[in-house]
Amino acid sequence: MTRITGKSFGSDNHAGVHPAVLAAILAANAGDAEAYGADEISAAATAGLCERTGAVSASLVFTGTAANVLGLSLLARSYEGAVCAESSHLNVDECGAAESVLGCKLLTVPAPDGKLTPSSIERRLSGIGDEHRVQPRVVQIAQVTETGTCYSLAELRELQQFCRQHDLLVLLDGARISNAAAHLNCSLAEMAAYADVLTFGGTKNGALGVEAVLVMRPDLADGVQYYRKQQMQLASKMRFLSAQVNALLSDDLWLANARHANAMAARLATAISGTPGVELAYPVQSNGVFASLGQDHARRLQEDWNFHVWAEGSDARCVVRWMTAFDTSEQDTDALAAAVKATAV
Amino acid sequence: MTRITGKSFGSDNHAGVHPAVLAAILAANAGDAEAYGADEISAAATAGLCERTGAVSASLVFTGTAANVLGLSLLARSYEGAVCAESSHLNVDECGAAESVLGCKLLTVPAPDGKLTPSSIERRLSGIGDEHRVQPRVVQIAQVTETGTCYSLAELRELQQFCRQHDLLVLLDGARISNAAAHLNCSLAEMAAYADVLTFGGTKNGALGVEAVLVMRPDLADGVQYYRKQQMQLASKMRFLSAQVNALLSDDLWLANARHANAMAARLATAISGTPGVELAYPVQSNGVFASLGQDHARRLQEDWNFHVWAEGSDARCVVRWMTAFDTSEQDTDALAAAVKATAV
Amino acid sequence: MTRITGKSFGSDNHAGVHPAVLAAILAANAGDAEAYGADEISAAATAGLCERTGAVSASLVFTGTAANVLGLSLLARSYEGAVCAESSHLNVDECGAAESVLGCKLLTVPAPDGKLTPSSIERRLSGIGDEHRVQPRVVQIAQVTETGTCYSLAELRELQQFCRQHDLLVLLDGARISNAAAHLNCSLAEMAAYADVLTFGGTKNGALGVEAVLVMRPDLADGVQYYRKQQMQLASKMRFLSAQVNALLSDDLWLANARHANAMAARLATAISGTPGVELAYPVQSNGVFASLGQDHARRLQEDWNFHVWAEGSDARCVVRWMTAFDTSEQDTDALAAAVKATAV
Amino acid sequence: MTRITGKSFGSDNHAGVHPAVLAAILAANAGDAEAYGADEISAAATAGLCERTGAVSASLVFTGTAANVLGLSLLARSYEGAVCAESSHLNVDECGAAESVLGCKLLTVPAPDGKLTPSSIERRLSGIGDEHRVQPRVVQIAQVTETGTCYSLAELRELQQFCRQHDLLVLLDGARISNAAAHLNCSLAEMAAYADVLTFGGTKNGALGVEAVLVMRPDLADGVQYYRKQQMQLASKMRFLSAQVNALLSDDLWLANARHANAMAARLATAISGTPGVELAYPVQSNGVFASLGQDHARRLQEDWNFHVWAEGSDARCVVRWMTAFDTSEQDTDALAAAVKATAV
Repeated sequence: MTRITGKSFGSDNHAGVHPAVLAAILAANAGDAEAYGADEISAAATAGLCERTGAVSASLVFTGTAANVLGLSLLARSYEGAVCAESSHLNVDECGAAESVLGCKLLTVPAPDGKLTPSSIERRLSGIGDEHRVQPRVVQIAQVTETGTCYSLAELRELQQFCRQHDLLVLLDGARISNAAAHLNCSLAEMAAYADVLTFGGTKNGALGVEAVLVMRPDLADGVQYYRKQQMQLASKMRFLSAQVNALLSDDLWLANARHANAMAARLATAISGTPGVELAYPVQSNGVFASLGQDHARRLQEDWNFHVWAEGSDARCVVRWMTAFDTSEQDTDALAAAVKATAV
Repeated sequence: MTRITGKSFGSDNHAGVHPAVLAAILAANAGDAEAYGADEISAAATAGLCERTGAVSASLVFTGTAANVLGLSLLARSYEGAVCAESSHLNVDECGAAESVLGCKLLTVPAPDGKLTPSSIERRLSGIGDEHRVQPRVVQIAQVTETGTCYSLAELRELQQFCRQHDLLVLLDGARISNAAAHLNCSLAEMAAYADVLTFGGTKNGALGVEAVLVMRPDLADGVQYYRKQQMQLASKMRFLSAQVNALLSDDLWLANARHANAMAARLATAISGTPGVELAYPVQSNGVFASLGQDHARRLQEDWNFHVWAEGSDARCVVRWMTAFDTSEQDTDALAAAVKATAV
Repeated sequence: MTRITGKSFGSDNHAGVHPAVLAAILAANAGDAEAYGADEISAAATAGLCERTGAVSASLVFTGTAANVLGLSLLARSYEGAVCAESSHLNVDECGAAESVLGCKLLTVPAPDGKLTPSSIERRLSGIGDEHRVQPRVVQIAQVTETGTCYSLAELRELQQFCRQHDLLVLLDGARISNAAAHLNCSLAEMAAYADVLTFGGTKNGALGVEAVLVMRPDLADGVQYYRKQQMQLASKMRFLSAQVNALLSDDLWLANARHANAMAARLATAISGTPGVELAYPVQSNGVFASLGQDHARRLQEDWNFHVWAEGSDARCVVRWMTAFDTSEQDTDALAAAVKATAV
Repeated sequence: MTRITGKSFGSDNHAGVHPAVLAAILAANAGDAEAYGADEISAAATAGLCERTGAVSASLVFTGTAANVLGLSLLARSYEGAVCAESSHLNVDECGAAESVLGCKLLTVPAPDGKLTPSSIERRLSGIGDEHRVQPRVVQIAQVTETGTCYSLAELRELQQFCRQHDLLVLLDGARISNAAAHLNCSLAEMAAYADVLTFGGTKNGALGVEAVLVMRPDLADGVQYYRKQQMQLASKMRFLSAQVNALLSDDLWLANARHANAMAARLATAISGTPGVELAYPVQSNGVFASLGQDHARRLQEDWNFHVWAEGSDARCVVRWMTAFDTSEQDTDALAAAVKATAV
């Protein structure tokens, strides 16, 4: 157990809840309501999500892992696998939920910057029609990726075309899709159009805890309500999850939050530019700054600041991750940047 | 989608959130905190739960179904089954989560009043040592049961003794354990002592959405944190689940809420006593009143009141369920009672 | 470990392999052959099975449990359940394979004589459309049932009509379907026409070890080869399974074997008729005789004969099962009958 | 469907059954026997396997995939993973059985020659104690590997020591362990001593179809009989699987068969040595010859010979696999070698 004092750059889920989201939760607490989503607040949330994305079905769940798993359950049978990046959250950080809950094999692909490409996917498309092999059926991508990068709309379109040619379905992990929209200056619908199923993350963007699974084709949504319940993601007092979604959608708070977080990441990246021994590890395209620096440097900085070492490197270097959130202030950002410089030797 | 006007007697999860719980959520929203439960609020919640119950491990999850499944995953291997009532939530209302997520077979037992007995369990203990048969390993009971009844402490003790004699473990579904404590006028620890793993329900007792899995023996808790994550129940902003628990534990709000709800159920039962054609289907031992009445009577009453027909019966009769909650008022209760009488002819 | 001397009436799988089946295995051992079923012997076996039954797809597997599970995997998604008899092999004797391997919930129905009826199934069709409930999708029946009874063709037709009306699929467990064909004096195709997927048992009818999964509709066969491999049922030297099937199909050996076994059961039933204290528990419609007798009587008889006590009863009585096989002789049968009488008082 | 004329070098499972194995099957067909392994022939088989290997438990199953999965089910809980080679049969050729049947995540490691090393395993041991990560628990190795190479006894000892230091269990896939014993000139027990669970393959070494799962520690064998049944691997007429094992163990036929197959592979490798454009891809340490040659060359050779192209390479080259078996003759081998040379241009 660690007490965090001051602003954490450790994760966007170290942040609390946006005041407007909390206000919506409070407002939802008026009188009784039908459970399990059969209430007006929930009807508004699912309608709002569908309207913004073009989805035909929206299901709220509790966590990003659950959203990935529910999405996957709509797309693949037990002998069908999901091509994904080795570094993907699905593969690395979900404690084998896809394998254990669904029995789904992940067909991992090296992806140095977190992004899949038609050619990297194609190398995984072996053994088609061979009964000894799990059959590739889904391509799972994250927008934003685990290393903070974004697919361009052109890249998404190219992936979709490739997938259609190869009878593959696209599952887009949108735990940080708002940050991607902010970076690309596009709508959610523009990205959703390139997916068959996508997730929409609220938690990292100011919610207390809510994610959505959005299905773009009616046939793929068949049975989603049962899968959600079976996967233990059906909230009884659903209105309080739905209220969070409504707050994020209202006046495009989701976008404002994401733009702010992205801006703080960009501000940080700019401010530390030129610091001796510090280099960006990946382009800054969302609310994370991944930087390569000396392990000693990182340790000195961690005495006062909360952030993660992302990867150990050779030559006593490492890659660190600094995450910003909707409530990261310019002062917090500038203070971290100053500390990075001051501890650089 | 149905709008509820006035107080619902449809379910205790039609109620909203207790003001003290909401206040705790608001208070938890101060500054940043470590995610996934490594924060002070969460430390207090798990310590509080362990202290009140004698548990060695407490894990917060999102739903009652998840709590049952997580508990079960600690107790049974894939070839070991759980003896439970045919009418149990685990068997009927969890969309096959135990079977699908864990691969666990449920060994159901008829239980007219929702309660298992040593002799009803014993009839299910066939095929021990026979490799063709799933081996009974867990006895899953609910306190309160699905029909609103409670095991007495003596009954719990007898079940535990029976289970120990037969190398069985006890999993107690405590989605409404607070109501049982209020009814039995006992502590949580007194009931927990008769279980190996139990769940503690917050959601039906004034929380926004939180349940806990409590493990009474250290060896059974091994790996619980991985199972919780894998079962998609690890909240990233855990402090907001923990704050709800803390609010319920503070000044024994959990007990006050349960006592109130139970009192309203008792009041309702008393008030409708003697109504022609209306009979209690089960003794009122918690916050639910199950009554047998004419189907026409039920239909007339449903025009103005929200409640469920629990079971269709013969002779144009049915059993209905009226649930009370922490916020059911005497006026609500009396108004429903009056309506029951008024529509009785 | 028990040595059996003389003819066993314990099970039809206590018998060995029919000489013609062994001869076919020997004959198949000529030269090399493609593995995994891509050989001529296997092509003949699957073609032969399809031709006899009207199936569009035939997949050989190792055991009856595997056949049931593979069939089920073609018919139900994880939230869809299979209605079956409480006493069914699927529910009782497969160590939870359906639940563990597929995650499929079984919706059990009491069936005193092992047979489901439209009305008993209908009582299990509750909660349709309710996301908390596993949705009934499959009706699993056994022909012959666990108690040796057979559905008539009229009963099968009635079940199929009921299932079509209720959007249910029929899975027929045909571990002893040959005995049913012999009893009903009908073709395999006549029974198969009332199923969506059925299994065809070889092992209990003279094979060394082979069962088949037969699919009656092309859309339901999609992916069966992957499911079979994933379920660990793909034999590498498949020709030796296929050769067994070919031997059984050749000159209708399957039918001759079944007719003989049935005839021996009928002979036994006739011979013991009138023995004091001995009564048939079920009509003899296949190769099993289920009789009610005194527990002491059963014990005396077991000193010299191998058979199972099927169920303990009240009043010091029990039901025993005597199974005949393709190689049970008239002498064996008459000797058992004589012993039943001799030990009766 | 392909007819094979002449000797196939496509797979060791293209071969038929050794005459002594068939004779044992015939001999086992005498009279009735208890089913499911409770017979004398089966007692001898399991005793024989335990005696030769030092195992405390031996379970016969139908396929190599099943043996791997049953072994794995004894060693890992759902959140525990198995480190294995990317190229392993478990990962590539079992249609996701480990993931689907057990829910087990495989933690793959690049292994150019099919062999794991302490350092390659160590790179996969990240996230220990992190609840988001599947916890490495098992190291799965194959002896012989997929590329025909063998671990030396020293390498096995080193792996075991490493695993013990890191609280890892060793699962040894011995589908071709007989060939390894022949190559290393060691006993089965010498290799088994370095494993916690191993499999013993009969099918590729002259059996009709039988594999064994051998457990080296009593605590790990707990429940194996239930897992085998649940995984649909319990043969009813077990004596016919057991008889195959007994035949292989008798007079060390298993070793003679393996030695012969290995010798033919060595003979082939020697005979083609120096052929222009043909190079061994891996050292020949068992009954497989992996050679790199031109794709045109391979195609010409495939006109008359049955074998697989193992991997496509660059520069119009490929790696082919020629497998020998217990019944590959010197003439077959020499004829293939001559053809390799004759088609070399």
